[in-house]
Amino acid sequence: MEQRYFFECAYDGTDFSGWQRQPNAETVQQTIELMLSRRFKNTTIPILGCGRTDAGVHANQFYFHVDLPKNLDLEQLKYKLNKMLPTSIVIFEVIPVLAERHARFDATFRSYKYFIHTSKNPFQDKYSWYFPHDLNLEKMNRAAQFLVGEKDFTSFSKLHTDVFTNICDLSKAEWRELDNDQIVFEITANRFLRNMVRAVVGTLLEVGQGYIEPEIITEILEAKDRSRAGVSVPAKGLFLNEVKYPFI
Amino acid sequence: MEQRYFFECAYDGTDFSGWQRQPNAETVQQTIELMLSRRFKNTTIPILGCGRTDAGVHANQFYFHVDLPKNLDLEQLKYKLNKMLPTSIVIFEVIPVLAERHARFDATFRSYKYFIHTSKNPFQDKYSWYFPHDLNLEKMNRAAQFLVGEKDFTSFSKLHTDVFTNICDLSKAEWRELDNDQIVFEITANRFLRNMVRAVVGTLLEVGQGYIEPEIITEILEAKDRSRAGVSVPAKGLFLNEVKYPFI
Repeated sequence: MEQRYFFECAYDGTDFSGWQRQPNAETVQQTIELMLSRRFKNTTIPILGCGRTDAGVHANQFYFHVDLPKNLDLEQLKYKLNKMLPTSIVIFEVIPVLAERHARFDATFRSYKYFIHTSKNPFQDKYSWYFPHDLNLEKMNRAAQFLVGEKDFTSFSKLHTDVFTNICDLSKAEWRELDNDQIVFEITANRFLRNMVRAVVGTLLEVGQGYIEPEIITEILEAKDRSRAGVSVPAKGLFLNEVKYPFI
Repeated sequence: MEQRYFFECAYDGTDFSGWQRQPNAETVQQTIELMLSRRFKNTTIPILGCGRTDAGVHANQFYFHVDLPKNLDLEQLKYKLNKMLPTSIVIFEVIPVLAERHARFDATFRSYKYFIHTSKNPFQDKYSWYFPHDLNLEKMNRAAQFLVGEKDFTSFSKLHTDVFTNICDLSKAEWRELDNDQIVFEITANRFLRNMVRAVVGTLLEVGQGYIEPEIITEILEAKDRSRAGVSVPAKGLFLNEVKYPFI
């Protein structure tokens, strides 16, 4: 008998070509699938993630679902998998769920963080983007507010993606100062489009440097044209930070 | 005319064979010397550090001294060097000092931190040692107190080093809990012997696991025998954290 499980995990995306399985590249999904397969008599075990992080993007919290035998010793399974998986991937919890639960479609809330440091810093550099410019955080936060609500994010999305709508419902978009000349952007929505957070951050950095005024964000949204928004920032500062389900 | 300068810097030691210049290995010292040489007409410019961190050890604060021309634009020099140096090394400040000031001999206070995480964590792993064992922090702190004061640290030092005395005056040796199953050991003294912090941490971890009682630390000190102390822990969790001079 099979049982559906949700796995809560985290990963350092630095050395992976993103979450999603693909030929001739090392991804988080196939690394986990390979270990599950080894653990379960070398059968093929497909897993399905809550989203598809791009190459180099990290996850502080990520869920995937998978069908495995019933009545497993879940603590033991978690322990063994963590031993087998590289340091860059950790399983936090294995949760039995109803067979119809879906890691991607059932997630109602996702939150990302993007870290930037404005002074050279050897220790921040792995998980934060070095952007040595004066930034007006107040203006960046004013601009960010124009993104909140139910908006069409076509201007902030990679072209030709396979989604049926580009409307996302943002509940939060906010910059905060941290210690040591580091800032973080937190953005929360029901869903995100491909490349969206990195395009939003790049655009808000143009506001922060004074190249565009905060109010222009509304025009960019309305244009539904990727070329109107700013350049995407690098992956290494980006973390999928939180994913929520009504039943977890 | 020459002027002596103190440089305050920091470095990620991961990819360096320590601070000290040596043949056929990349060290922090020669990386900085090379950039200074490029900046000053390719003359040879020897620098002298406040200590000699081992391969893989990091520094949040480190000083070296060097003799350079008088009346330099110090902000400009700092800016240029930071551009030339790799991400792993940063110069915080360039400070003109009297010609007789010495980065190594004049330092009166040094403080190290050692980080350990007891749960698998992809993001802590670069600067912290993964040690998945139950630890009794209260016992470790009791043991650490036996090290405080003016003591002979021969039992915690690499053999055959060139120092004239193994007596160090410890003012602090303390474990603290951080977030996310991470702990940190802070140790402060007028001076340290080679490998001393890592041998102390290894020994205190034996206390924390219950293999030896806190009081045994006194016996280990008195034995003046390296084989009595515990195994040295890996370099990656170790940071030279603070260095102080009476005149800075």
